[in-house]
Amino acid sequence: MRPEHKELMKQRRRNIKLTLAYDGANYHGFQRQNPPVVAVQNVLESRLAQIFPDTIELAAAGRTDAGVHALKQTVNFFTDGAIPTERIVKAVNGLLPPDIVVLEATEASRDFSARHSAKSKRYLYKLQLGKANPFTARYAWHIARPLDQTAMEEAGAFLLGEHDFSSFRATGGAPMSPVRVMYEVAWEKQPNDILELRIHGNGFLYHMVRNIVGTLVNVGLKKISPPEFRAILEAKNRQLASPTAPACGLYLAEVFY
Amino acid sequence: MRPEHKELMKQRRRNIKLTLAYDGANYHGFQRQNPPVVAVQNVLESRLAQIFPDTIELAAAGRTDAGVHALKQTVNFFTDGAIPTERIVKAVNGLLPPDIVVLEATEASRDFSARHSAKSKRYLYKLQLGKANPFTARYAWHIARPLDQTAMEEAGAFLLGEHDFSSFRATGGAPMSPVRVMYEVAWEKQPNDILELRIHGNGFLYHMVRNIVGTLVNVGLKKISPPEFRAILEAKNRQLASPTAPACGLYLAEVFY
Repeated sequence: MRPEHKELMKQRRRNIKLTLAYDGANYHGFQRQNPPVVAVQNVLESRLAQIFPDTIELAAAGRTDAGVHALKQTVNFFTDGAIPTERIVKAVNGLLPPDIVVLEATEASRDFSARHSAKSKRYLYKLQLGKANPFTARYAWHIARPLDQTAMEEAGAFLLGEHDFSSFRATGGAPMSPVRVMYEVAWEKQPNDILELRIHGNGFLYHMVRNIVGTLVNVGLKKISPPEFRAILEAKNRQLASPTAPACGLYLAEVFY
Repeated sequence: MRPEHKELMKQRRRNIKLTLAYDGANYHGFQRQNPPVVAVQNVLESRLAQIFPDTIELAAAGRTDAGVHALKQTVNFFTDGAIPTERIVKAVNGLLPPDIVVLEATEASRDFSARHSAKSKRYLYKLQLGKANPFTARYAWHIARPLDQTAMEEAGAFLLGEHDFSSFRATGGAPMSPVRVMYEVAWEKQPNDILELRIHGNGFLYHMVRNIVGTLVNVGLKKISPPEFRAILEAKNRQLASPTAPACGLYLAEVFY
């Protein structure tokens, strides 16, 4: 956020928290971009500006990449607009394109920040097994060869608890501690040959979920054994892990405060 | 098909039948269009041309409209190409965009026509009930208000058997008999608040399924009673039925020969 906006925000009376879902297939990620590239934030801010009289600047819990989806993204913004909270959802959804939907709007305390107050986040990653499915091409990663789900579960369990996740961190990311805590790492079969990873942690490094999935799929394909996966984690070396899984399978599922 | 092509086809040695699925959201229907408009047929024919040496002209069981999907569309084409049938699926799918997938390729008898040999067709129509869902915006018709499914089933049952379906025929369509036979008309709840119509008949008039759905949804909303729906069918008058339901909810599910 630009400093002059930060000051402006503090002077405004209301802090509105929105929960939203979006199909990321047609957007260049969440974070605002310069036209003609369109991000979810561009669309959302321009529509909110039609309802709220002041310039809206959103803060989001997670800056999803191009093609990544959200089941429950959380954002907040400061405003002097008078529209009652219970009318915001309908008013904003009436202006948004159908691939972005506001699920909930609530009044938050002044010190709430969708980004900085987040305690933990849950992501899903969907694999389309079996035959290629034209309806999931932009919503899951298609893996035609059989996967050993038991091996993937065994390897994934090594991620639980506190670890230095440098091996799964994108090179060139912002300098910050690579230590995170994972509370849940679970694979679950879903209808229509979808295999879904549920991963819940106190925070995630840039591309971390996709790098983990890329490596766990190679465990499923028996190119990497579960003990080798553990060694990759412990080596704290991005060169040892597998390529980043595609964006289309990733969903920001929920943000906890 | 142009007459000179019809002649050409007869001289070729093989008649190949393909079953395919496609996400119609990004296409202007199945039937070939002049650029820059792109139809499924344009894409499929141009990719087949890379594998088969002769000019390919497809015949399809159903000419789905813009935005309409297919779970199992059937097409056929004549060729002198030598590629074995069992290699066609992999070869074609390797060239197709991910939203079009060939499911099966078989050698058909010379007199088989995907279009003219079809005995019956099954369509699905998906309604998204409850809250708007950004992931089904292009794959189902969103109806936010509660629907009386029992009334929709009661009204739908009047369609079974042989009827003159003029009330559900698009105005301005090609002149042909409006009499068709329906074998199945059933509504079924699916996961994630999807209500699905399954309709199977020996043939369908232009926009017939979408006009039936538009009218049955008004039965579900209690704007039309089941006896009034029956009266609309019997009146053979398009003016009495409801507006056409959106294309996005419609799927060509299967073609029977």
